Amino acid sequence: MDMHIENIQNDLKNDDIQAYLLTQFTNVEYISNYKPTSFAFCVIKENPIIYASSMDMEIAKNNSIIEVREYESFETMNEELKKEGIKRLAIEPSLPYGTYEKLRDDFEIASKTYVDKQRMIKTPREIENIAKATEIAQKSFMQLDILNNKNTEKEIAFDLVRFMIENGAEKESFDTIVTSGANSSLPHAIPQGKKLGQPILIDWGAKYNGYCSDNTRTMVYDEFQHEIWDIVAEAHDKAIKAIKPGFKCSEIDMISRDVISEYGYGDNFIHSTGHSLGLDIHETPGFSPRDDTVIEEGMVITVEPGIYLEGKFGVRLEDTVSISKKANVIGDLPLNIV
Amino acid sequence: MDMHIENIQNDLKNDDIQAYLLTQFTNVEYISNYKPTSFAFCVIKENPIIYASSMDMEIAKNNSIIEVREYESFETMNEELKKEGIKRLAIEPSLPYGTYEKLRDDFEIASKTYVDKQRMIKTPREIENIAKATEIAQKSFMQLDILNNKNTEKEIAFDLVRFMIENGAEKESFDTIVTSGANSSLPHAIPQGKKLGQPILIDWGAKYNGYCSDNTRTMVYDEFQHEIWDIVAEAHDKAIKAIKPGFKCSEIDMISRDVISEYGYGDNFIHSTGHSLGLDIHETPGFSPRDDTVIEEGMVITVEPGIYLEGKFGVRLEDTVSISKKANVIGDLPLNIV
Repeated sequence: MDMHIENIQNDLKNDDIQAYLLTQFTNVEYISNYKPTSFAFCVIKENPIIYASSMDMEIAKNNSIIEVREYESFETMNEELKKEGIKRLAIEPSLPYGTYEKLRDDFEIASKTYVDKQRMIKTPREIENIAKATEIAQKSFMQLDILNNKNTEKEIAFDLVRFMIENGAEKESFDTIVTSGANSSLPHAIPQGKKLGQPILIDWGAKYNGYCSDNTRTMVYDEFQHEIWDIVAEAHDKAIKAIKPGFKCSEIDMISRDVISEYGYGDNFIHSTGHSLGLDIHETPGFSPRDDTVIEEGMVITVEPGIYLEGKFGVRLEDTVSISKKANVIGDLPLNIV
Repeated sequence: MDMHIENIQNDLKNDDIQAYLLTQFTNVEYISNYKPTSFAFCVIKENPIIYASSMDMEIAKNNSIIEVREYESFETMNEELKKEGIKRLAIEPSLPYGTYEKLRDDFEIASKTYVDKQRMIKTPREIENIAKATEIAQKSFMQLDILNNKNTEKEIAFDLVRFMIENGAEKESFDTIVTSGANSSLPHAIPQGKKLGQPILIDWGAKYNGYCSDNTRTMVYDEFQHEIWDIVAEAHDKAIKAIKPGFKCSEIDMISRDVISEYGYGDNFIHSTGHSLGLDIHETPGFSPRDDTVIEEGMVITVEPGIYLEGKFGVRLEDTVSISKKANVIGDLPLNIV
């Protein structure tokens, strides 16, 4: 039996729960190697089983390391599980309420994050995939020749995705952000059909073997933009230097936040300092004021402080680090693109 | 006050519920004109309000027709709502269980589909957007010159997306499927880095003004493939002809399913006959054996029967229809690409 599954079985035993239902696609993929395309109910218990959609039966049978059965109805599934003696059923916090309603009369429900907990710590193979995704994304970024680029934001975003795919990515790991001028003050700006203004902010990533990369670079021009850039770079560097197993995630957030606050821009840093990534672009834990998770070896987390001046511009600088005794920046793209 | 909001307020009054919490991005967008990029709690009540992420405040204030407040915490939000006398709170079935846990101690929770119900019936403006998305997608498909195309599945999928964006789409409305040969028996196949085999199945759509299109065409070659294609085309045509307000969705599914079953391929039609679309690529109702929703004017639903022969090939043909007195196929792309 697979190690990830054994770990869950142990968690279940400790919590006196008979089964854990997974429906989040990346959780099912992580545990079974089969990635659902429409829906799936993956039940980890003594004999794990996946109830797959009829549409997915072929792909599930080909890829899953867990037995696959065709899903018919909640009634059938619940009956089968009850017959096996399952009374307490663990679910993921992401389970839709409507699905919970189909289960709550048959089982005692407990919300658990057994899989998220395992996914926090990346295996060497997972880190390799993230590193490869990052390598592809950064190489593609350089191919853009951004400083001499006369295309629109939208065209540049599209070129970047094309380069990533040509360089071996499955796809972009999230909607590519190419924004410039005043729009760069929107953390999740959508590329527009207009030529580049100043500054230029690009937030992009590739997906490789299912794994995501995530970087942001901002190219600044006038003196004020440079001043803001320097503050963000200082916050970025100090946070990365401080990352060590044993510290709390919130403490790392505080380090970058303090830098920005000292310069008087605390209110303009409107998001967390970073998030984990892996099969999903946003995973736990994150460098957030509210996340007291203790940093461990094997975590892969982004560091992305930013300053957003509404109506003027924004600067964000983002790298992804893998954590051993210290934080190792993944990839080798300079922070300062000149 | 906007009509959609008034309708919800009436639903709430009838059900003796004081507020409806929306978190699904497209529901928030549908009601408020602001599309969240990270998270939002949109509360429809006497005085509707959106608790938006700090990251989204600028874009929310610019776009929302509803008052926007910065989200701080569940505690603050729940307290504010309780002070206004909110006791019973409606939620969407899609609400994550983890969010429900943050609400259940403060409110009596009821799962409601008030917004889905409204979204079932498209306004003329919505239908125009879907028609425009379809026009862009179909024009782009023809630019592929698929029968003379020497590229790989992956490259063709990428070209199709590029054409759609050049023709005015925001993006693809879902991961473009270009599949061929034996892989075409997977309803949700992923384009591979190999030259086209036979048959060729392409399932694609554009997004325009937030609205999705959805079509599938299969290009067949040998006699057996043609035989299967003819059956699927018959199921497609008969279902579309039968669609009329007053019928149940399940009855339309049965019509296409019966055609395919009569030829002996019932077990190879492994999904529903169709789904609604709009801001989301999959909406309710659907032409499914289990959906007894009565068809009404203004619905926009796909018709996409298919036959999947594991290890051999698959054929699927899909058009989107808007329903008035009868079903009007959106777009003018022939079913038979030669």
